[in-house]
Amino acid sequence: MRQFTAYTPTKIILGADAHRNVGAQVLEYGRKVLLVYGGQSLKSNGTYQDIVDSLEQSNLSFVELGGVQPNPKLSLVYQGIQLCRKEKIDFILAAGGGSVIDTAKAIAAGVCYEGDVWDFFVEGKAPKKMLPVGVILTIPAAGSEAGCASVITKEDTKEKRTLVNELAFPKFAILNPSLCFTLPKKQIAAGGTDIFAHVMERYFEPVGGNEFSDRLCEATMITVLELLPRVMNNPRDYDAWANLMWAGSIAHNGILGAGRQEDWASHNIEHELSAEYDIAHGAGLAIIIPAWMRYVYKKHPERFLQFAERVFGTKTSENTYLNSEAYKEEIIQTTIDGLEEFFRSLGQATRLSEAGIDDSRFDIMAKRATQKGSLGSFMKLETEDVLNIYRMAL
Amino acid sequence: MRQFTAYTPTKIILGADAHRNVGAQVLEYGRKVLLVYGGQSLKSNGTYQDIVDSLEQSNLSFVELGGVQPNPKLSLVYQGIQLCRKEKIDFILAAGGGSVIDTAKAIAAGVCYEGDVWDFFVEGKAPKKMLPVGVILTIPAAGSEAGCASVITKEDTKEKRTLVNELAFPKFAILNPSLCFTLPKKQIAAGGTDIFAHVMERYFEPVGGNEFSDRLCEATMITVLELLPRVMNNPRDYDAWANLMWAGSIAHNGILGAGRQEDWASHNIEHELSAEYDIAHGAGLAIIIPAWMRYVYKKHPERFLQFAERVFGTKTSENTYLNSEAYKEEIIQTTIDGLEEFFRSLGQATRLSEAGIDDSRFDIMAKRATQKGSLGSFMKLETEDVLNIYRMAL
Repeated sequence: MRQFTAYTPTKIILGADAHRNVGAQVLEYGRKVLLVYGGQSLKSNGTYQDIVDSLEQSNLSFVELGGVQPNPKLSLVYQGIQLCRKEKIDFILAAGGGSVIDTAKAIAAGVCYEGDVWDFFVEGKAPKKMLPVGVILTIPAAGSEAGCASVITKEDTKEKRTLVNELAFPKFAILNPSLCFTLPKKQIAAGGTDIFAHVMERYFEPVGGNEFSDRLCEATMITVLELLPRVMNNPRDYDAWANLMWAGSIAHNGILGAGRQEDWASHNIEHELSAEYDIAHGAGLAIIIPAWMRYVYKKHPERFLQFAERVFGTKTSENTYLNSEAYKEEIIQTTIDGLEEFFRSLGQATRLSEAGIDDSRFDIMAKRATQKGSLGSFMKLETEDVLNIYRMAL
Repeated sequence: MRQFTAYTPTKIILGADAHRNVGAQVLEYGRKVLLVYGGQSLKSNGTYQDIVDSLEQSNLSFVELGGVQPNPKLSLVYQGIQLCRKEKIDFILAAGGGSVIDTAKAIAAGVCYEGDVWDFFVEGKAPKKMLPVGVILTIPAAGSEAGCASVITKEDTKEKRTLVNELAFPKFAILNPSLCFTLPKKQIAAGGTDIFAHVMERYFEPVGGNEFSDRLCEATMITVLELLPRVMNNPRDYDAWANLMWAGSIAHNGILGAGRQEDWASHNIEHELSAEYDIAHGAGLAIIIPAWMRYVYKKHPERFLQFAERVFGTKTSENTYLNSEAYKEEIIQTTIDGLEEFFRSLGQATRLSEAGIDDSRFDIMAKRATQKGSLGSFMKLETEDVLNIYRMAL
């Protein structure tokens, strides 16, 4: 096990009516709120009005910034920063999923900084101060509600980059499972795939000696595999949503990676895809993960055998010819096929060609993905490796 | 799943040399430190000197309060409060296990309160302010390093009572697995039993619908069952200790109970035992848990079957006569016997009589355990039930 610091200060509040009391939470930190959200669904399902009512009950004033898109854009962050300065905002409330939350975090960092907020995403500079951010989560997916990262895309250069800083942990995250009842199936599938990916990027690591977090990762992956089909089949299954929301927060608040050498190659490879083609991050992961697995598994096949046994329930150890390399290979291939089939069963494309993407931009995406150096730790990936993974995903 | 608030703000720092930089951590919160610890082992193994060196390097002054005993006493808490006031202490550093940490927390609450600190333990009063507390953990057991509870015993009345308050979360907890290499086996066994108990008190709950935290609890119990024998056999197994320390913190920082109706009857029944006989808390739990299980399992046998299958690896679902009640009964009995045997394999007594305790105080202990009302939620236990459990444990 590697040395680690685990810090998860975000207060998680889960409950059927939890968001109706958001004003009381905000009051601990600010008086003038910027409410950040995405599209019309927040208004049409009544959540917007619930939030406004609660803010008003707590005598909080607010201005709003709607229109956040998937793969959130830097231009809207700049707009938010200007708005905060003009209106003397002291708290940012994000009501939505990862894109909304990441936009809120980027604005929170930019408001307190004289330079260009993009410095934090590409220059390695660290914010010294940020406005406090709170979250009302409307879809379990990105895990941004309990994490300290923000992923933003610069439109003109199509760069998708990440800020990671302890100041970016939201003060609180309100999880109301009922808010998920009306989500489109496509978003549910992509969100669940993203949660799975956050665990798997930590799970497949080369160090070993992490028996406890192995088990925690496996527990979280099994939960996604079991409960995601449940909410796909019955979108009003409160308990299934509650478990998925909680799993989504734990999956990406850092504790599942404590002591591990995390990988994150699949995420980086996917980021280029969604920056280039603007497909949803989770949808891109459903395509990239199986290809990444097929490309790297030979580096540490024992990790994949453990995954097969504990997550997919394959009884590897009972088979008499376990020690045959061919049999191990078969188990691993079958398991990766099984995961691809799981993603497909959620209605997702698992090949680039199925998503209407050809090989014309592979070169440029592979170069951009590796412009800061090789990717991953389970297997170090150079530009050529990333290119091969795109090709395998075709 | 029930609604919940999960809040785990303690920063966990795990590493081989982590405690040598404690001064830098303390500096974020205070300038004048009370160093609380137990006996001579802290000095004889060099840890005391490492701490002093680090505090001095950070130009922090300190006074010390040694001599904390297992089942920590209120009288020492009073002594610590007086010392803090006299020396104008602004930070309390606990170096030890649960007793030391709980003493530090109680002092931290008492210093900022004009009345008797015992009010917080028996009167239901909540502290409004506490001094900041930091921890250097020397044994994985109580989980107090990452939790917001303090358990203190009032000597004259033999009452063992608990304070629970968000202010009692330590600011940081430093976990250095190497500090565990020289622990006596008896303490290792009792500590591991306590960790197991913290999970099991959350796991056996009547509500259901907690698929995710079921899995997290199971992951943590399996970790204890697998790694505790490893450190018993090889006390210098760094990775095993690292995993156990991390499991010990997660076991009791609250997240494993999120959404669940926790039980805590075994803890309360044991508390009377260790208040009356001054045996170690974990040693008492090794006796009480199997008796509690045998007394309550019929209330929700399906929970015990899941425990048998997922934690003990009993293949309940493959057996053709699973639906036979007698067979289910047999699986459950065998599993409880197996857990008792596990505790015994660590060198622990699993019956009161083996620990030299007879039935002469059962009545008074059962009455005291239930003086505020019934115990538990898996099965509600009245005075007579507690008495029966003591009898079963004889």
